[in-house]
Amino acid sequence: MATRVLILGNGLIGASIGLALKNLASFEGEVIGWDANPAESAKALEIGALDRVLAASDEAFAPYSADIYVLATPVLPILDWLKRLAPVLHEGQLVTDVGSTKAEICALADKLYNGPGHAAFLPGHPMAGKESGGAALAEASLFQRATWLFTPIAEPTPIEAEWRALVTAFGANVRDIDPEQHDEVCAWVSHLPQMLSTALAALLVDTFASDPAGMAAVEAIGGRALRETTRLGASPYSMWRDIAMTNTDNIAATLLALEQRLQHLRENLRTPELREEFSTANRFRAKS
Amino acid sequence: MATRVLILGNGLIGASIGLALKNLASFEGEVIGWDANPAESAKALEIGALDRVLAASDEAFAPYSADIYVLATPVLPILDWLKRLAPVLHEGQLVTDVGSTKAEICALADKLYNGPGHAAFLPGHPMAGKESGGAALAEASLFQRATWLFTPIAEPTPIEAEWRALVTAFGANVRDIDPEQHDEVCAWVSHLPQMLSTALAALLVDTFASDPAGMAAVEAIGGRALRETTRLGASPYSMWRDIAMTNTDNIAATLLALEQRLQHLRENLRTPELREEFSTANRFRAKS
Repeated sequence: MATRVLILGNGLIGASIGLALKNLASFEGEVIGWDANPAESAKALEIGALDRVLAASDEAFAPYSADIYVLATPVLPILDWLKRLAPVLHEGQLVTDVGSTKAEICALADKLYNGPGHAAFLPGHPMAGKESGGAALAEASLFQRATWLFTPIAEPTPIEAEWRALVTAFGANVRDIDPEQHDEVCAWVSHLPQMLSTALAALLVDTFASDPAGMAAVEAIGGRALRETTRLGASPYSMWRDIAMTNTDNIAATLLALEQRLQHLRENLRTPELREEFSTANRFRAKS
Repeated sequence: MATRVLILGNGLIGASIGLALKNLASFEGEVIGWDANPAESAKALEIGALDRVLAASDEAFAPYSADIYVLATPVLPILDWLKRLAPVLHEGQLVTDVGSTKAEICALADKLYNGPGHAAFLPGHPMAGKESGGAALAEASLFQRATWLFTPIAEPTPIEAEWRALVTAFGANVRDIDPEQHDEVCAWVSHLPQMLSTALAALLVDTFASDPAGMAAVEAIGGRALRETTRLGASPYSMWRDIAMTNTDNIAATLLALEQRLQHLRENLRTPELREEFSTANRFRAKS
């Protein structure tokens, strides 16, 4: 049984995992936190997501002590941690992550983990979050009814089964998927909606930059449609840079397809083809 | 004081106006309904939105009897009703509407209304609705805290003041705006988000049409981001055809601008320009 979990990255997701471990999964071991930004780990400790915090300068020593390492940072730092942890961990220990893209992470981990004498790595991705980050917004219930994807790259181990059981106790719906398919599907359901919201919000800002009365009208008149399609425009670059860097081709393909679809719609605003577009769209139902 | 309101079009908006008149504005006169689809007016009567329903075949006689005529249909039928009502109404009566675009409506009404001996016309547009229509979804509270725009084209009259007071009693925030500016701003805050949702939902349907497992993954993995950016994809063509027909140039301009912005973002997924896009988008705040 795991007696110590180390969460590397104590922002919204990392701190919510700490809260869920302690409040939903009845994990009785020790939950330790580390964050490059000491204010985040201090906040996570304050809200009860952690039992103990390692100093930012402790990172060199962090690897040696836990049964389960949860990498809860953006994707590029996850890649760094994978490289740094591999040489100092051993069989029986588990590294798992919450990274938003999986193909690059899995390709790297496949070389460094899961072999004889090595720690296990279970790639994960909880489909949960908020448009703003930080431990201050963490909630134990963040993962309830959310899908928590795993993209396993090796045979299951006992410690991996323990982590899966903990995640299930968070209230998440666990689903396994191939890493390449993960990145393709996430481009459609997550990365494209994000880029769309960012583009629309940025376009509105620039369009009305020299027209404060127009922007005031936009803000006064805009309702739920505008709010929902621009909400993600508030998302932080820091996280999305890594997603764009590690899923570029899939995101570019979905963007190009949408550009072409918008052009088609624009050229048919007054033709019967508009009916076909609405009719096709009417057949789509997102998970409610 | 108005003693009789005739609502032409008894779908979601028309029936909600009936409910709001009777339950929120304490309107003590008679609320009469007419709809080209008798099932809609029957449903509106059933839920208490109307006191009386004119038969669909009564439409030739409907014009003679009310103080206030509320045109609660899509835009093209509103244009038809404006032409049919003008010759049979007289000074002291008010026609108002809820049409989603205003420039064409105002241009037509300016020739037929508001002159000596003619009925008054007050163009209106409540920024409220749902992605599905019909009297069955009507609510008295639909307009509470929503913005109700007017685009007046003539000097105010006493009967117009009465209608404004009733709308205020619905809980709506009344705001006057120029008809041309209305259509330009609504292209940004309403029509563009709609076309975007329609394009994205239609694209997903076509992309995964031959890949049921992929569509199942999209539905299972998609969360709030996908749900919010595709919600309006369920909107009916019947209403949007008229909006696209009567605000074509503004909608095409916003679509083209967004296509270009998405292309720019796509070409900069791995450059520092992505940071600029996120930073600019972060400055946008829709009304919460």
